[in-house]
Amino acid sequence: MLGFMQSPDGPLTRLRKSHEQSVLGLLRKHGPLSRAELGSHSGLSRTTLYDIVAGLVEGGAVVASTPPVEVRRRGRPVEKLSLNPNAGEAIGIDFARRAVHVSAVNVAHEMIGSASEAHASDLTWVQRVDIAERLLGSLGRSSQDDASVGRPPRRGTLGLDSLSAIGVGVVGPINDPGSADAHALSIDGLPGLLRERFGVPVLLDNNTRLAALAEAVWGAAADAGDVLYLRLSHGVGGGLVVGGSLHRGMYGMSGEFGHITVDPDGAPCECGGTGCLETVASIEAVLQRYRSAGGRAEDISAFLTAAASGDPAARTVLERVGTDVGTVLAAVCNAVGPGVIVIGGELAEAGAALTEPLEGALGAHVMPMARHRVRVRHATLGEAGSALGGIALVLHESPLLSRYPQPVTEELA
Amino acid sequence: MLGFMQSPDGPLTRLRKSHEQSVLGLLRKHGPLSRAELGSHSGLSRTTLYDIVAGLVEGGAVVASTPPVEVRRRGRPVEKLSLNPNAGEAIGIDFARRAVHVSAVNVAHEMIGSASEAHASDLTWVQRVDIAERLLGSLGRSSQDDASVGRPPRRGTLGLDSLSAIGVGVVGPINDPGSADAHALSIDGLPGLLRERFGVPVLLDNNTRLAALAEAVWGAAADAGDVLYLRLSHGVGGGLVVGGSLHRGMYGMSGEFGHITVDPDGAPCECGGTGCLETVASIEAVLQRYRSAGGRAEDISAFLTAAASGDPAARTVLERVGTDVGTVLAAVCNAVGPGVIVIGGELAEAGAALTEPLEGALGAHVMPMARHRVRVRHATLGEAGSALGGIALVLHESPLLSRYPQPVTEELA
Repeated sequence: MLGFMQSPDGPLTRLRKSHEQSVLGLLRKHGPLSRAELGSHSGLSRTTLYDIVAGLVEGGAVVASTPPVEVRRRGRPVEKLSLNPNAGEAIGIDFARRAVHVSAVNVAHEMIGSASEAHASDLTWVQRVDIAERLLGSLGRSSQDDASVGRPPRRGTLGLDSLSAIGVGVVGPINDPGSADAHALSIDGLPGLLRERFGVPVLLDNNTRLAALAEAVWGAAADAGDVLYLRLSHGVGGGLVVGGSLHRGMYGMSGEFGHITVDPDGAPCECGGTGCLETVASIEAVLQRYRSAGGRAEDISAFLTAAASGDPAARTVLERVGTDVGTVLAAVCNAVGPGVIVIGGELAEAGAALTEPLEGALGAHVMPMARHRVRVRHATLGEAGSALGGIALVLHESPLLSRYPQPVTEELA
Repeated sequence: MLGFMQSPDGPLTRLRKSHEQSVLGLLRKHGPLSRAELGSHSGLSRTTLYDIVAGLVEGGAVVASTPPVEVRRRGRPVEKLSLNPNAGEAIGIDFARRAVHVSAVNVAHEMIGSASEAHASDLTWVQRVDIAERLLGSLGRSSQDDASVGRPPRRGTLGLDSLSAIGVGVVGPINDPGSADAHALSIDGLPGLLRERFGVPVLLDNNTRLAALAEAVWGAAADAGDVLYLRLSHGVGGGLVVGGSLHRGMYGMSGEFGHITVDPDGAPCECGGTGCLETVASIEAVLQRYRSAGGRAEDISAFLTAAASGDPAARTVLERVGTDVGTVLAAVCNAVGPGVIVIGGELAEAGAALTEPLEGALGAHVMPMARHRVRVRHATLGEAGSALGGIALVLHESPLLSRYPQPVTEELA
C-alpha cells in the first residue's frame, strides 16, 4: 500500500490554520466585520467560525467591539471584529558580528522604522540585547533611519508592550547549537534572553539567510520566487529562497556557498575545509591578495576606491574573485535553477568590475539552455536586510505564533 | 507599505482547495459519510459543504448513494458520500530513451502493477504511446511485474475508462519545449496525444526528476524530506526534493547535476558546455575511459562484472568517477543541505567501488559540520522509479485535477 506523503503537521492542524488565515485575511481586506459577515465571506459554519474567532481574540490578534449607542438601530448591539491595531507589530533584529540592526512594521505591514548601531565584537548577548532594546525604543520617536532602506520615512509609534513577535538573525548556523561559527557567540541562551526582555515569541535564523528572504520579499528579487542570494563580506555566505519560501535544508545547512570548494589545493578555511570560496572571496582574502600584488589599502573602502579609480592590481583581484564566485554559483544554478542571483555585502559595491567576470563565469558554466535566464542583481536592502528578513520570517512563518511553534521558536511561558 | 508575499493562486482558490482536500481526506479515512457527518467532521457550513460536495461529485471524485431500503429507519433516505472506487486510479508512464515503463495504483493507493518494454530509440510518440497502452492493458490481468519494484504482487484490475490522471516522465527539460535534450523527441505533441488516447488530464515532468520524487516518497529516502537524487546512466541527471516536494527551479532547470563543471579544461559536452560531470560519469564516458586503460567491455554490464571481479583498471575508473561525482555533489550539498543522497542508474550497481571514493570526496568537500549528517544510499525503485514518480506527481500535485491546472497539464477539452 502506498500512502500519501505526510506533511509535518496533520491535515486538521493545517485546516484550522487555513481557517484562521482566511479570517485574518478577510479582516485585513474588509476592515471590521460582524461574525455573520465573516461567516458569509469565509464559508465557515457558525460553530467553526465562533471557535476560530474565540482563539484569535484570546491570542490577541483580533479584537471585538460594539459600535457606539447612537449608530445602533434596535435590539442587541452587533459586535464587530477587527484586527488588533496593537497586536500586529513585528520587529526584526539582526545581531551581526559588530553591529545590531533593528526594523519594525505595524499590523498593516507599514514600516515603522529601522536603526543600527556598531559595537565592539566582544560584547555579550546581554549587552547586544540592550543595544537592540534601545534602538527599538528610539523608533517610535524618530523614523529618519528609514532612509537607509530606501523607503520614505513614516510617522509611527512602536509599543514594545504590544509586539506580536520578533524575528532574529544571528551569525552562523542555527539548527546546530553546539557547533556555531568560530566568530559567533553560542546562541543557546539568546532566545530565552529575548523572550524575557520582550515577552513575545522569538524566531531565530541565520542572518545571511534572512537577508536572502528579505531581498526576495521586498528587495532586488521581489519579482522572483526562486532566488540565490550571496553575501560577500568578512564571511561569504548566502541563502536560497525556493518558491517564495526560505530554504533551510535538512539540518539547517542550506546556502553555505562560501564553503563550496573552489580550489582543492587552496588555503585552509576556518570551517576546517580547504580552498573554500570564502578563502578567496572574503574581504580579508581580497585585501590580502591585493596587498600581495603590491596594492595598498587599509580596509575594504580603500580597496573599492582604488578599484573604482581603475587601479590595475585591484581590477585584477576583482576579475579573479568574480570568476571564482561565478564558477561556484554556476554549479549551484545548475542544481537549483534560480531566476535571480542577488549579490550583497561590501564587495558587491565594486559593481561591474566584479559582476562582469562573475557573469562571464556563469556564462561558461551554467548549462547553455539556462544561461540567458538567470539575472544577476545588486542587493537593494543594504545592512537593514537581515533585520527586515527577521520581519519577513515573522510574517511568513508565524501569522499565528501562539498556536504553531516553529523549529527554533521560544514561546512565552 | 510592505505587502504579504503573494502565492501564485489566490487565497480563495487555496481555501476552496483546502476544503476539498479536507472532504476527500475525511472520506478516505472514514469511508462513506452523510453530508451531516461530513459537516460536523469538517467544520464547514452547510452551504459551503454542499457546494464543495457538488463540485466533487460533478468531477467524478465522489459518488453519492442511498443505502438499500431494508436498512432505512424512517423518513427520507440519507444519502451517503464516498470516494468513487473507479475514479481514483492513477497511472504513471515513463517514456525513457529506449523503453516504456508503466505503473498503476488504485484509489486506495494500492499498487495494481508495473510493466516495462524496451524498444528502438527511433520510435515515434504514437508508437511509444501504443506500447504504453498495451502495457497498461496487461496490468489488469497480470501483476507479476510488481516483483520488479520489490513489492508483493497484488491482484487488481485497471479500468482505463476510469483513470483519474496520468503522470508522465520524459527525457529532457519540460518547461522549455523549444530546447529539448538532443536525444529526445520534441514533447510538444505528446500531452495532446495522451489526452486523446486516455481522455484524462496529463501531468508531465522530466523522468529523472520523477525518479527523485519516487525515491523520496516510496524508495531509499522515504524517511527524509530533503533529498538529492543522482542518476548515473547514459546521461547524468538528477532531482531535488525539498521539504517533501519536487523542486523545479524558476524555469524547470533544477537538478541538472550532470552539467555542473568538473573540469574546465575537459571534454566538450552535448549540452554545449565543457567538462561537465556527464563527460566523465556517463556510461559511455566510463566505458571509454576503461577502454583507454586497456580494459575490454562491450557494455556496462561487462564493465560492472569486471569491476566486481576486482579488475584493477575498472576499479581505477570507478575511483576516479566516484571522486568526481562526490566533488560535484559536495558543492550541491553545501548549497542545499540534503539529508539523503540517493544514487541510481546502471553505474550505481558498482556498489562500494563507486560509493567509497564518492563518500571520500564528500568528506573532503562538504563543510565539516555537515559531513556526518549526509547519508548516501542506493536507489531502491529500479527502472520503475520514474513511472512511480509520475503517480506520485498525480497524488501530490493534482488531487483535484479537473479544477486546478498545473503548469504543464493538458486537460480534457
